[in-house]
Amino acid sequence: MIKNCKLLSFRELGNAELGYLTPLEIGEDIPFAVNRIYYISDVPFTACRGFHSHRKLEQVLICVKGNVKIRIKTYLEEDIVELNNSNYGLYIGNMVWREMFDFSEDAVLLVFASEHYDESDYIKDYNIYLEESKEYFKIVYENDEREV
Amino acid sequence: MIKNCKLLSFRELGNAELGYLTPLEIGEDIPFAVNRIYYISDVPFTACRGFHSHRKLEQVLICVKGNVKIRIKTYLEEDIVELNNSNYGLYIGNMVWREMFDFSEDAVLLVFASEHYDESDYIKDYNIYLEESKEYFKIVYENDEREV
Repeated sequence: MIKNCKLLSFRELGNAELGYLTPLEIGEDIPFAVNRIYYISDVPFTACRGFHSHRKLEQVLICVKGNVKIRIKTYLEEDIVELNNSNYGLYIGNMVWREMFDFSEDAVLLVFASEHYDESDYIKDYNIYLEESKEYFKIVYENDEREV
Repeated sequence: MIKNCKLLSFRELGNAELGYLTPLEIGEDIPFAVNRIYYISDVPFTACRGFHSHRKLEQVLICVKGNVKIRIKTYLEEDIVELNNSNYGLYIGNMVWREMFDFSEDAVLLVFASEHYDESDYIKDYNIYLEESKEYFKIVYENDEREV
């Protein structure tokens, strides 16, 4: 997985007779205080969303129904993660570019964010993102090289 | 609506080309700090869940996919609310008995709670609930009578 991202797994409680419940304790299962929550649905399969990074905000993305693919990038690395199980969450830290695509017809993508809405925290221009990403991650990747 | 409960409505952003996003700012759209989140799915239509009250915890329930019915009760009143639209949330305050039933096959019920999991906050015995509910709501209903 690329820098500043990780896959989280959650426990599921229940059975076929009563259904299934996934509990998330904030500060434990979700590694930050949640200030904003949103959910996305009814996205056509051909549509792509996202196309931005956050300077500060952290998120956890959970596909609670259906499936969706998430492309996550820094200036040096790229991963595509398919979310197709509500017991996994994709943690996306700050300064990571994200794109969401291949939403299944029934997909519901649930997102928890560490900050309230703040327009100034978004980087929506990919060239500006690349500049700020190089600056931000340079030391991280340089440290990696030293460790090799 | 019965005491200690209310229906919340949320704004939805988007269009048919890109899909729809419902943003919830914690402390504004959700009237408490969120310490626990859970989601329930794959509940058979014949199953009923809930059958408890909380002494202190407050919740908001949102059906982000499909539909479900929620029975909410105090010792004096009862309502059944059908959640079938992800832009509505049912706020359930403390000391309200709740039962969830008639889950559609595709239903995903998302719940935000004001407290971390605490077994001692649950009242699961309906007779004990009735006793505590009478004590808790007595003054509320008596004040209502005076106002009539």
